[in-house]
Amino acid sequence: MEIKVVKIGGNVVDNPALLAGFVSDFAALGGAKILVHGGGVMASSIQKALGQTPKMIEGRRITDEDTLRVVTMVYAGWCNKNVVALLQAAGCNAIGLSGADGNVIKAVRRPAEPVDYGFVGDIYPSGVNCAFLRSLLAAGMVPVLCAINHDGAGSLLNTNADTIASSVASALAAEDTVDLVYCFEKNGVLSDKDDDNSVIPVITPGLYASLKASGVVAEGMIPKIDNSFKAISSGVRNVIIKHAANLGNDIQTVLKGE
Amino acid sequence: MEIKVVKIGGNVVDNPALLAGFVSDFAALGGAKILVHGGGVMASSIQKALGQTPKMIEGRRITDEDTLRVVTMVYAGWCNKNVVALLQAAGCNAIGLSGADGNVIKAVRRPAEPVDYGFVGDIYPSGVNCAFLRSLLAAGMVPVLCAINHDGAGSLLNTNADTIASSVASALAAEDTVDLVYCFEKNGVLSDKDDDNSVIPVITPGLYASLKASGVVAEGMIPKIDNSFKAISSGVRNVIIKHAANLGNDIQTVLKGE
Repeated sequence: MEIKVVKIGGNVVDNPALLAGFVSDFAALGGAKILVHGGGVMASSIQKALGQTPKMIEGRRITDEDTLRVVTMVYAGWCNKNVVALLQAAGCNAIGLSGADGNVIKAVRRPAEPVDYGFVGDIYPSGVNCAFLRSLLAAGMVPVLCAINHDGAGSLLNTNADTIASSVASALAAEDTVDLVYCFEKNGVLSDKDDDNSVIPVITPGLYASLKASGVVAEGMIPKIDNSFKAISSGVRNVIIKHAANLGNDIQTVLKGE
Repeated sequence: MEIKVVKIGGNVVDNPALLAGFVSDFAALGGAKILVHGGGVMASSIQKALGQTPKMIEGRRITDEDTLRVVTMVYAGWCNKNVVALLQAAGCNAIGLSGADGNVIKAVRRPAEPVDYGFVGDIYPSGVNCAFLRSLLAAGMVPVLCAINHDGAGSLLNTNADTIASSVASALAAEDTVDLVYCFEKNGVLSDKDDDNSVIPVITPGLYASLKASGVVAEGMIPKIDNSFKAISSGVRNVIIKHAANLGNDIQTVLKGE
């Protein structure tokens, strides 16, 4: 089966106009599809409203017990159910899942060394319940995954949504043809970072090496593209990087193997 | 198929020791089963921590937009995923659902007259997606329903958990043999309200009439028992009233039709 795994960030979930357009485009996508969403901006805002101080190291949230409660409330509760209700209204039979639901993703708590991230989970391919995901897709349902997993021993764990998307796409790619779509705040990988119209349409590993060498691709884009090529190495067909507002059109960068 | 629908209140979900015992007993129950949970105590506490004032009329929460966000976070997020993760750890393949997920319960927003409860939904039998629930049960899964539904037009709605349990039990009873178990803070219907050992083991409509006439059953128990007999009239086999700590034993009141 051909499957699209689409990831959106919390900035989309928290922006009613952008979310409405995205939901309409996503509902119109043909074929089997899975949505993965973040919600970090809203989690930080609820943490602050509750008098907590969000703590991040290299962009990753330190998840102590109070933080785990907030991210579970925000990601699995408000964000997930709001997106699912909107998709249902658009005629898309969405089903929101944390990793605990149907044991769809069992994660492993990250070791406390060198940095103790708290209740944060890493995902191994064997932890993704592909059989359950395929049974939902075969029934015409659309799994909507939030960034909360479980360890199988009763604890919930927080996992970066980009990582969930690439882990699920890679695991399904063992048997299916999978494309992974990362929506972010730019139109794609740009040849001029100040010009949102300078989208590079296709990047192969060869072109990527020269773009890095010439400094066209730098900073935050490097880990994103590295992770994308890692997903391609583990069997994902294409990784597509684009703006959430462009899901319905071809403004995008497609990363492909040689 | 024989199906048990078990309802627990937020007081169980918010009490780690009571919840652990309940989860173990619930996981050990044989056959097809569905869990419905509340979370009202925790929702009120998060509302207060966020500077909101919970508003209730006759024990029902007025659900404005801010309240809807909190109850969705608490019921569908923290409570639901925590219970699901504990059930998974106990070997029970639980799947947490709001009414929006798989369109499992479509509710109708309650009219603003005579009392405007805000985003509160009433359930009609046709709104319960029995086919989807049966497909999950047939796959050996255990649906865990929280008190959040949707209207099919993109809005989430808050519905009393007792009502969800009786609506789901009644709708399934059209084709299946369904028992409905209400867990609450007493051991059952008591012949002496101050003696928790005075549980009346079986109540039929005839006995209920005389218990009401003699004043043995009064106040808060009357709507609970009325609603239970209403579920029995709509096809539920037995309604069982007991303490969550007694799920694994027979300390309980069984309400039966004549």
